[in-house]
Amino acid sequence: MDPVTTDTGPTPRTRLTPDERRSQLLDLGVRLLATRSLDELSIDVLAEEAGISRGLLYHYFGNKHAFHEAVVRRAADDLIAQTAPPAVGEPLERLMTSVTAYVDYVVANYEGYLSLVKGASGGNDTLREIYEEARSALTDRVFREDAQGQIFPETPASRLVVRGWAAMTEELVLTWVVEPAGVTREELLAILVASLPALVDVLP
Amino acid sequence: MDPVTTDTGPTPRTRLTPDERRSQLLDLGVRLLATRSLDELSIDVLAEEAGISRGLLYHYFGNKHAFHEAVVRRAADDLIAQTAPPAVGEPLERLMTSVTAYVDYVVANYEGYLSLVKGASGGNDTLREIYEEARSALTDRVFREDAQGQIFPETPASRLVVRGWAAMTEELVLTWVVEPAGVTREELLAILVASLPALVDVLP
Repeated sequence: MDPVTTDTGPTPRTRLTPDERRSQLLDLGVRLLATRSLDELSIDVLAEEAGISRGLLYHYFGNKHAFHEAVVRRAADDLIAQTAPPAVGEPLERLMTSVTAYVDYVVANYEGYLSLVKGASGGNDTLREIYEEARSALTDRVFREDAQGQIFPETPASRLVVRGWAAMTEELVLTWVVEPAGVTREELLAILVASLPALVDVLP
Repeated sequence: MDPVTTDTGPTPRTRLTPDERRSQLLDLGVRLLATRSLDELSIDVLAEEAGISRGLLYHYFGNKHAFHEAVVRRAADDLIAQTAPPAVGEPLERLMTSVTAYVDYVVANYEGYLSLVKGASGGNDTLREIYEEARSALTDRVFREDAQGQIFPETPASRLVVRGWAAMTEELVLTWVVEPAGVTREELLAILVASLPALVDVLP
């Protein structure tokens, strides 16, 4: 196998470091995952889309499992970054910004996101771990970003309810994408954002 | 293979019809599933617990896949039957009865229920279908049992929210069983029941 330092692929426009090239390939993997399940995203597909050899991809990612793990981890990192709420503003407005980004992410990356949810629920431990990390980042953020407790205080019961709200949000968005049933994007967003304080209000 | 009519197994206390015997074996399968995942519930395990031969079980169920399907369908039917709300009473009291039965079912059958959820999410089409049937029976019932619209009217948006509420309920119960975090069963039930009208209130 070629040493990594000489391994920049065919006729690159700019000379990338191996890390940059790997990162570029992961971005491509995430883009391909938007309209494919993880099962459909093979090293072959990526090699064809990237215009490089399968051997080079194996050089970067080792095997199919490690490749999938790396792509899903990148996708989860993208999701977490894109749904970061703004640093300032009213709590519910910041929640709206975050939820809007989440809905738009799921709409834009439906197949890959569904594949992550299925893989995580279906017993793939690595996917489960990445999925739980992403979900924790999203739910923990509700408390971190609401450090003053303006929306609600952090208690075991409110943690449980936020987790339930996240599951509800995921279910609603995944259902709505397939079958909007006359519910507009704005209505969906309004339901999701208003649900959280409404649920917290029912806490004993 | 013996004709079904002579096939009553070893020294039965009473002579059962083949349908009764099959039904008895399914009940045993469901009981075993309470503390096992579906993967752990093999024809071998059932044969040992039932004290009959593997051959006889294959005679009744054909193959492992058909056996699992039959057990899961029986478990889903049990869940639907046990969570039926009472015919009379205040809407929220009837919802409480139904939700209480659901929580108790999941607590008593945790491994098997989790296994159904995982199998359904993980891409097993048969499990998915049975799971969706069970969930539809539960969510549709909210509307059937609330035919007067006393809790809320049936609209596309309220259907979506009820589906989200069911996902939230499932997530909360599955999380709570593993990590109650100081939340009592009564508090959990109160949260679940009060959540539904609270969520409907946020509908546009």
